[in-house]
Amino acid sequence: MRAAFLKGTQLSLVEMEKPKSQPGAAIVKVRMAGICNTDLELVRGYMNFQGVPGHEFVGVVSECEEQHWVGKRVCGEINVGCRNCQYCRLDLSRHCPNRTVMGILNQNGAFAEYVLVPAKNLREVPVQVSDHQAVFVEPLAAAFEIMEQVKLAPNSQIAVIGDGKLGLLIAQVLQLSCADITLVGKHERKLDFARALGLSTCLKNAAIAKTYNIVVEASGSPSGFESALNIVRPRGTVVLKSTYADNLNLNAAPIVIDEITIVGSRCGQFMPALRALAAKRVQIDGLIEQIYPFAQFSEAFERAKQPDSLKVLVDFDA
Amino acid sequence: MRAAFLKGTQLSLVEMEKPKSQPGAAIVKVRMAGICNTDLELVRGYMNFQGVPGHEFVGVVSECEEQHWVGKRVCGEINVGCRNCQYCRLDLSRHCPNRTVMGILNQNGAFAEYVLVPAKNLREVPVQVSDHQAVFVEPLAAAFEIMEQVKLAPNSQIAVIGDGKLGLLIAQVLQLSCADITLVGKHERKLDFARALGLSTCLKNAAIAKTYNIVVEASGSPSGFESALNIVRPRGTVVLKSTYADNLNLNAAPIVIDEITIVGSRCGQFMPALRALAAKRVQIDGLIEQIYPFAQFSEAFERAKQPDSLKVLVDFDA
Repeated sequence: MRAAFLKGTQLSLVEMEKPKSQPGAAIVKVRMAGICNTDLELVRGYMNFQGVPGHEFVGVVSECEEQHWVGKRVCGEINVGCRNCQYCRLDLSRHCPNRTVMGILNQNGAFAEYVLVPAKNLREVPVQVSDHQAVFVEPLAAAFEIMEQVKLAPNSQIAVIGDGKLGLLIAQVLQLSCADITLVGKHERKLDFARALGLSTCLKNAAIAKTYNIVVEASGSPSGFESALNIVRPRGTVVLKSTYADNLNLNAAPIVIDEITIVGSRCGQFMPALRALAAKRVQIDGLIEQIYPFAQFSEAFERAKQPDSLKVLVDFDA
Repeated sequence: MRAAFLKGTQLSLVEMEKPKSQPGAAIVKVRMAGICNTDLELVRGYMNFQGVPGHEFVGVVSECEEQHWVGKRVCGEINVGCRNCQYCRLDLSRHCPNRTVMGILNQNGAFAEYVLVPAKNLREVPVQVSDHQAVFVEPLAAAFEIMEQVKLAPNSQIAVIGDGKLGLLIAQVLQLSCADITLVGKHERKLDFARALGLSTCLKNAAIAKTYNIVVEASGSPSGFESALNIVRPRGTVVLKSTYADNLNLNAAPIVIDEITIVGSRCGQFMPALRALAAKRVQIDGLIEQIYPFAQFSEAFERAKQPDSLKVLVDFDA
């Protein structure tokens, strides 16, 4: 099969063997995959990953011991836990110390014609959700994760820093329960989209008052973290969604002086995201930059690298 | 009057005018003061403070419009708010954006024979509390602040990093409600004291399992923050008590990946600390390194600078 393979900082299309059936796992024929900022970071050295990246995908089960899965349209939770530790027992396999993570840590991902997924991780995609939308389940689940970690009140004043895919998803999710969301970004086109969704918007370099109870950093840039600390109010909360390949260098004194809480936030569970998509509570279509056939994966990846880019999708059937 | 005055990085005993009476404020004749790590940081440039430092003290009110205070033995809350903003209205004047802070920000402190304290900030010291103990009210209040910010459970596994004064106070306070506290330090003498208090102890460079729900960083050193991140479990909380004059340089990815919460924590209210001292629930006497007469302030300050030093007190009546 064809796959995009990362070795060192070289990502290239190769021919490799199709994954072999395994007890308890399904082979999924990938239909569509999305390129995430984490993929861009992997190529910069993040996690020292070697293998097939790709963790946002939708496909059809082609082989599985549990026959009822065969032929189903699915996406897959990306963390694979040991099932035995205290985290796995609490449905927190995304924190299992022995986990693998699809396309990120010790497990091949979905930038390939076929991908192996534990049957336990499969989630059927409801018929109301298109392939394009289903690719967004993983980042959308990461957006919902914030609501599992931080208490939001309907009158919380919230800023989301970053007008990229993740920022726009997060702002939409938070808007479901909280009226007052401001998206801070630097691309007029994306801020237009945000305004069309009913969000307040603000340019990153504008003078922003230090009045936000909650600030979500989703810009992917260390300067976004600095901005978050600048606009969160005393005793407020900064949710850190971005992972940076480089170190952060910061003056930590204001965190102590203003008693700021910083909450690291990563993956969420897929079901709330699938339910939100099926109910059309989140708007995806304006988030797609371009769709490339898999044969043009390199071009797709280059496009995704552009800072102004929205979500780049790869179509395996085109 | 005599006072220790900080200008740039020069701290020296000078003669200066006694503070003048002001409506709503008391003049307190200082009896005893403590040297805090924050004072050491001020001399290294933290806060660009110029004036009389010193924010841990006990004294006797010598002048006050509100006559009932005169002659009372008191300590003083160190944050002076505007009384009008939303923080002041919530009894959070320590976060008032226009606050001054005794001996730290735009207000002279207690390394002087007399100090001006707003009457609203005075707290009478109960007769059961000695002068020596009363000097510890401010850092003890800072220790109790953690319990206002972080939910502790009786079975929480907690590590406190730093065997200095603050670390030993924090460990004692957390021990009041939680059984399982480990103090991580590097001075055998201080760890001995901790063990005598019933605390578990551990040397800083020992291999420590990543099993703590809550880790409090109170070492005053950026390496303590790194240690905290290394031993907190996924989804755990790091309470940051230290303020560093230097920048932190850190790999923030594990904060996101392990979904760690970092809580900046500063000053607390004095009353819980005074109650705990009056009830003998916290052990202070083993925390005193040495008591110097005020005339030997420079020697006292040099002693406080030694990394192995416990609390150095300055006696104004000696």
